[in-house]
Amino acid sequence: HPILNTTSNDPPNPPIDHRTLAQNHELFLTSQYSPGSPLFLPNGAAIFNKLQAFLRAQYPQFGFTEVVTPTIYKKSLWEVSGHWENYAEDMFSVKGRGASGQTVNSEIGQNEEFGLKPMNCPGHCLLFASKPRSYRELPIRYADFSALHRNEISGALSGLTRVRRFHQDDAHIFCRPIQILDEIKSTLDFVGMVYETFGLGPYKLLLSTRPVDHFMGTVEDWDKAEEQLKLALAHSGREWSINEGDGAFYGPKIDIVLKDSHGKEHQTATIQLDFQLPQRFKLQYQAPLEDLEGAVSPHETSLDSGHARPVIVHRAILGSIERFMALLIEHYAGTYPFWLSPRPAIILSLNQNPDVLAHVNNLQRQLTGNTPRRDADGLPRPQPLDRIPLAIETDTTPRSLGKKIHDAKKMHYNFIIIVGPAEAANGTMKLEMANQPESSRLQTLEALKDILGGKEYNSR
Amino acid sequence: HPILNTTSNDPPNPPIDHRTLAQNHELFLTSQYSPGSPLFLPNGAAIFNKLQAFLRAQYPQFGFTEVVTPTIYKKSLWEVSGHWENYAEDMFSVKGRGASGQTVNSEIGQNEEFGLKPMNCPGHCLLFASKPRSYRELPIRYADFSALHRNEISGALSGLTRVRRFHQDDAHIFCRPIQILDEIKSTLDFVGMVYETFGLGPYKLLLSTRPVDHFMGTVEDWDKAEEQLKLALAHSGREWSINEGDGAFYGPKIDIVLKDSHGKEHQTATIQLDFQLPQRFKLQYQAPLEDLEGAVSPHETSLDSGHARPVIVHRAILGSIERFMALLIEHYAGTYPFWLSPRPAIILSLNQNPDVLAHVNNLQRQLTGNTPRRDADGLPRPQPLDRIPLAIETDTTPRSLGKKIHDAKKMHYNFIIIVGPAEAANGTMKLEMANQPESSRLQTLEALKDILGGKEYNSR
Ligand SMILES: [Zn+2]
Ligand SMILES: [Zn+2]
Repeated sequence: HPILNTTSNDPPNPPIDHRTLAQNHELFLTSQYSPGSPLFLPNGAAIFNKLQAFLRAQYPQFGFTEVVTPTIYKKSLWEVSGHWENYAEDMFSVKGRGASGQTVNSEIGQNEEFGLKPMNCPGHCLLFASKPRSYRELPIRYADFSALHRNEISGALSGLTRVRRFHQDDAHIFCRPIQILDEIKSTLDFVGMVYETFGLGPYKLLLSTRPVDHFMGTVEDWDKAEEQLKLALAHSGREWSINEGDGAFYGPKIDIVLKDSHGKEHQTATIQLDFQLPQRFKLQYQAPLEDLEGAVSPHETSLDSGHARPVIVHRAILGSIERFMALLIEHYAGTYPFWLSPRPAIILSLNQNPDVLAHVNNLQRQLTGNTPRRDADGLPRPQPLDRIPLAIETDTTPRSLGKKIHDAKKMHYNFIIIVGPAEAANGTMKLEMANQPESSRLQTLEALKDILGGKEYNSR
Repeated sequence: HPILNTTSNDPPNPPIDHRTLAQNHELFLTSQYSPGSPLFLPNGAAIFNKLQAFLRAQYPQFGFTEVVTPTIYKKSLWEVSGHWENYAEDMFSVKGRGASGQTVNSEIGQNEEFGLKPMNCPGHCLLFASKPRSYRELPIRYADFSALHRNEISGALSGLTRVRRFHQDDAHIFCRPIQILDEIKSTLDFVGMVYETFGLGPYKLLLSTRPVDHFMGTVEDWDKAEEQLKLALAHSGREWSINEGDGAFYGPKIDIVLKDSHGKEHQTATIQLDFQLPQRFKLQYQAPLEDLEGAVSPHETSLDSGHARPVIVHRAILGSIERFMALLIEHYAGTYPFWLSPRPAIILSLNQNPDVLAHVNNLQRQLTGNTPRRDADGLPRPQPLDRIPLAIETDTTPRSLGKKIHDAKKMHYNFIIIVGPAEAANGTMKLEMANQPESSRLQTLEALKDILGGKEYNSR
């Protein structure tokens, strides 16, 4: 078996900027028509979608369910959440342009201004609050890949790292205060699994605790929550430390600080506890006695009798997917692991012989799945849901094989497949593999599919 | 093998409104904070994501590659595309709220107004125009699932059918004029395949041709294009007819008009040719002689020498995914095919015996994949990319089995799995299946997984 790992263990130092590397692979564009909103070309979109698909495949085992929520909300929602007051400078305002939003059957606040969402949390609070909740349903864990917008100053915008439009692998956990420990343990497990998969690390964990002066709730609430975070951190087996008093006024948090292959530190994942949003949105659940006695805010008057306030955990593991992609691009330095590669394989023709060209096309169709399945009437049949698309390109230009191999290597294809007259003539799948520690000849298409179809994640 | 098909062949007539059916399945909410932007709850998001995943699995065989494009573009882009002039009433305007967008290092048009995109086409034109194109690259087919916004009047908003925020299974084909026939043939094949999969139909195809008075380009251009559309329609083997003179001024189109199970007609998919946008965006490709002689607009001066103008085909097969979901919800009348079902299966405990409850949990974890894979160090290992999540619920309340079965049927689970002390005691996977033509007892978990893991699309 040829080794799938073709990425280098020695990335260039200093790293090549992700914008330069992205150009070689045609990953994305920026445009003056939407500064800070990258346009992903097919290769970049393929990586972007693979990252989402990877997380989606993991969500069931960690108990997350995905939701789909609006892009714009009225000012009145952002007033409830506090964003309109505290986040004004960073938000985009949205208004109907025509008169069409201002007609007879208008709802309350019809002509109100909207805000383009910078975060998903308020929307998830609406979902939580949409029906009475019992402690038996908790934790509820909503995941959301929505596009988010923040109005960064234009001078600061850069590639995928400083943007105005981005996506997070965002999620909110609504849980009972006593569930914090298990949720944080599980989230730290998830973080570890993800960073291992990409061959990233080591990283350290930073706990930010209660600020001295200004904080929500009681000292006792904070102590209990921080105790659970410390237990979870100790359980993780990772290096961790405390930033005393550095937490937000609404809750303690854990930051994941990643050291990249060049020694540079990146703050990527965050796990933020929040006592405030549940209060602002008057969230509650019908609680057992133990929760009522140990309630986070026992003196609150806005709770119904027999009800307690859930805690929200905001968590993102990749953080901004765009920024994480920039990090990966530099980390892999242009040579991607097979499963993430925008250029997994190319088929080169040895010459211009029509049989050779036909065989190249045939192979490409079979490997990519571009041969529609047909039913008895000749109509195409759908491909199954678990099909992972594989982009196999071809080079059938009338150039020397040496030149084609040279170019293909420069473009960092994981596999280079060469087809000559012998393969075409006997219709077999005898193939030459290049860009590998050693070349090998495969007798069947199945053998090749087996290599290319590897479903595990090779981080290197 | 129990039959997977549990949906009824006799949907209620008149149909139950999708908003009512959606409530039973907890599919979505609407909120006064964002009228016309549905919030999908986990069950609705699962269907929404399955529909996208289904199309994604088909894209390679039809040559589409996905791209990811901005949500907001400056007014100047919408002026190029013509939307600012012709579509003003329906667009939302976006502006930075703070002073942060107005600082020293400002780009040209820094303080310009943005528009929230109602369509993806202008963004795709930017991608096409991002580098010189040769006829050898064509057709280029960009697919995009972006959220789109149109400012519908609030009085007209309703469930998933009249919305302000929606997603299309949108795509744009940039092709040579002589490629229109093949592209339309292939698109009609794709449409047929999709509608068969959902058990929808019959449908008819409507060709709208050149308007009498006001149209772009030459009569000859239109005749050639319409000729190709007619050939493709004839080739489809479907019922089709002509709406003489009913095309837009910028190109002819084909509408797909679906007759639902209640005889009501729905305009869903559209295939729209466009001679205008390529001109507005000055799109061109380096062309062979035959294209230059038969050029769509041979007299254009803005083309470089040796270059021709591509044609754009706008096409959506589901159309608005939200509206298509509404149609499916009514079509299936609350009983979804297994692969799309938000409630594929539930496990009921026969009693409250701790062994029984443990066995229920164990089964649920195994069937959903909620048992993390662990490596030697006890760390979770990632699930493979091709894993299709399966939401298996449980009912372990202390109620009679009869009552639980009754409730589970009311909630339209495709499979009802019953676990009693016998199964728990001997650790086997002997299970009772309900909600099926006949009950059956399965000896192994594998046998159950085999049934539940069916990857084909059962339309009924
Ligand atoms: Zn949040
Ligand atoms: Zn379009």
